[in-house]
Amino acid sequence: MSLSSEGLTLSAIKGVRLGAAGAGIKRSDRDDLLVIEAAEGSACAAVFTRNAFCAAPVIVAREHLAHRPRWLVINSGNANAGTGQRGLEDARRTCRALGQLTGARAEHVLPFSTGVIGEYLPLEKIESALPEALGALDEAGWARAARAIMTTDTRPKGASRIVEVAGVPVTVTGIAKGAGMIHPDMATMLAFIATDANVEQASLQACLSEAVDCSFNLITVDGDTSTNDACVLFATGAAGNAELNRQSAAFPLLAQAVREVCEELAEAIVRDGEGATKLMRIVVEEARNEVEARNVAKTIAHSPLVKTAFFASDPNWGRILAAVGRSGCADLDISGVSIWLGEVIIVEDGGRAASYTEEAGRAVMSEDEILIRVALGRGGAQQRVLTCDLSYDYVRINAEYRT
Amino acid sequence: MSLSSEGLTLSAIKGVRLGAAGAGIKRSDRDDLLVIEAAEGSACAAVFTRNAFCAAPVIVAREHLAHRPRWLVINSGNANAGTGQRGLEDARRTCRALGQLTGARAEHVLPFSTGVIGEYLPLEKIESALPEALGALDEAGWARAARAIMTTDTRPKGASRIVEVAGVPVTVTGIAKGAGMIHPDMATMLAFIATDANVEQASLQACLSEAVDCSFNLITVDGDTSTNDACVLFATGAAGNAELNRQSAAFPLLAQAVREVCEELAEAIVRDGEGATKLMRIVVEEARNEVEARNVAKTIAHSPLVKTAFFASDPNWGRILAAVGRSGCADLDISGVSIWLGEVIIVEDGGRAASYTEEAGRAVMSEDEILIRVALGRGGAQQRVLTCDLSYDYVRINAEYRT
Repeated sequence: MSLSSEGLTLSAIKGVRLGAAGAGIKRSDRDDLLVIEAAEGSACAAVFTRNAFCAAPVIVAREHLAHRPRWLVINSGNANAGTGQRGLEDARRTCRALGQLTGARAEHVLPFSTGVIGEYLPLEKIESALPEALGALDEAGWARAARAIMTTDTRPKGASRIVEVAGVPVTVTGIAKGAGMIHPDMATMLAFIATDANVEQASLQACLSEAVDCSFNLITVDGDTSTNDACVLFATGAAGNAELNRQSAAFPLLAQAVREVCEELAEAIVRDGEGATKLMRIVVEEARNEVEARNVAKTIAHSPLVKTAFFASDPNWGRILAAVGRSGCADLDISGVSIWLGEVIIVEDGGRAASYTEEAGRAVMSEDEILIRVALGRGGAQQRVLTCDLSYDYVRINAEYRT
Repeated sequence: MSLSSEGLTLSAIKGVRLGAAGAGIKRSDRDDLLVIEAAEGSACAAVFTRNAFCAAPVIVAREHLAHRPRWLVINSGNANAGTGQRGLEDARRTCRALGQLTGARAEHVLPFSTGVIGEYLPLEKIESALPEALGALDEAGWARAARAIMTTDTRPKGASRIVEVAGVPVTVTGIAKGAGMIHPDMATMLAFIATDANVEQASLQACLSEAVDCSFNLITVDGDTSTNDACVLFATGAAGNAELNRQSAAFPLLAQAVREVCEELAEAIVRDGEGATKLMRIVVEEARNEVEARNVAKTIAHSPLVKTAFFASDPNWGRILAAVGRSGCADLDISGVSIWLGEVIIVEDGGRAASYTEEAGRAVMSEDEILIRVALGRGGAQQRVLTCDLSYDYVRINAEYRT
């Protein structure tokens, strides 16, 4: 983890510039508007929330994705979700406003919003601040951009990787925001990633979808899938490598770099989950298949009883056992199930492990990062899910969110 | 609701006696052991948790149910769950101990436990207190019994109904405990119900299963299905009516009385959910089928973001909309969805209702009981789920549970 402090150091991507400004959407003392520009000829891939009540900008961004977009316009402080026809028109008008200032067509702009649901976008504020954001466009703008998209996040989140692809060094950098309403479903909260690699369009989309599936889709803060989740990956080609596609020998190297950036951002989102004081890595193995492993892991990760016990550093492992038991595994033979807290075995043969002591459990629970490992004893599949604990601050943040 | 105070008035059931005692299992200042005796010839129906890690007493009670049990022995303060072979032997030994004192065979005793998971039952304490509980056996023992089974409950829960069945007055009385780990799955937290009606065994089981399905199975406090859920219904026949079965003209009258007792107990459990300050009734209508309606209602009911907004009396209805959107309704046309908070329409045509004002929403949210109604606009099925809000006290109670 490189993200425990504000000192975010991110590698620039040739061909990608970022510019932030303060539009005063919810607060007047911070950046809340971000523009990202990718060079002419860049490929763009994206995944979006599957929430049926997806936000207006998600609908517009989906439409525009087919037009090889080069611009992103992102605001925090207002989600433009649950805003019906007027919300759609507001998202389109934001794209047109950016187009008028840059000469781009509206279809070349993807709009994104994050913040409170159900309020109309303050268009005048956004339009007034766009020139300042465009004036700030800079290849070195990643760290400031990571701050501009924050809502209840307490820390900016970003990650970079450099890999050599067919003799050419290629860079991947991404930023994300998270905090609450985090249980991504085939997408994530907002994340924006770019590489200077030269990648064929469909292969770039495959690369992103696979990376998201094993990173953002395996985290949860509160089990609530957002209306605004989106993740975008630009590839500018400025690195000068021969075009990569899924068949290229070097493609897995790039795919791995993208996946690592996504994993680092996903972990940073959980670490900074609303009110989070602990990171829990839940590994379920010996499952019949990955779906089963994921279901068991997510049932544990969503349990408010498990999450409050971790907040209290209380090795109340009975709550983990109860969550495994209700997770819907068909014909689960509990005598084959083993559960560990860190290196300490807590459950075997359907009950408390003979060697378990409360002291050993308490020692593991006092850590800031805790591994929970469940072996189901009925197959070879495994899955890992990250989550955080449930604290007083989660309740406070969400009770006071709109005040 | 008749249960807002400790002044619980419950009708006695001819043929059923209850006796409580303090065994000092977790605390020394309260009753925590309960014995219930049903008269010779009583029919007994029961439903149990589907949690695969079900507790030892649940396994033993399931075995004994076929032997026409007449005795229940219930302890609070320790769930005897996650205790493996030793837990099973402890549950059987408790049945034998009661049998030795009463002359009953062990198979005529159903054991129940509720409390902390993963600790062995303090058998000596229970065996020492059994004579006192037996000495206290009394047809008027219902209210004291309701207190003896409490864990983090703040109030005892009970309900009575009297109906005339084929010219004979018949009484139904039940008690329950709830508070946390409440998301019953084909059963409930502990509930014990009895009637003096004369009812054929299989019909009694059908009566109970149907009543549970439309009461306890439609509530949730925290989405966690307990390892120890159970609900038992005795029918003593002491009322003297001709034996009822499913074909009897009067059977629906008894079934309704049982269902009403279950509904009243279920509502009392939600009202006294851990840390609860508000009761939310979530009605989903115009669904394609009942399963879909129930899924949407439970997705709203489980959302920690919805629950914290209700705790704060904040009409943050975007969180309700987001929950509906992620609930997994196939091909949901959001333009057909309407959502009301009480009588105030908040969502129509895929967005905020034109007539909605923050003031109107805030007025509804300030109530202690709030109706959330969702019309999906795609069918005729409906379902109702009860839940409570998520407060600081939920976190406190569950962080401190074992201290």
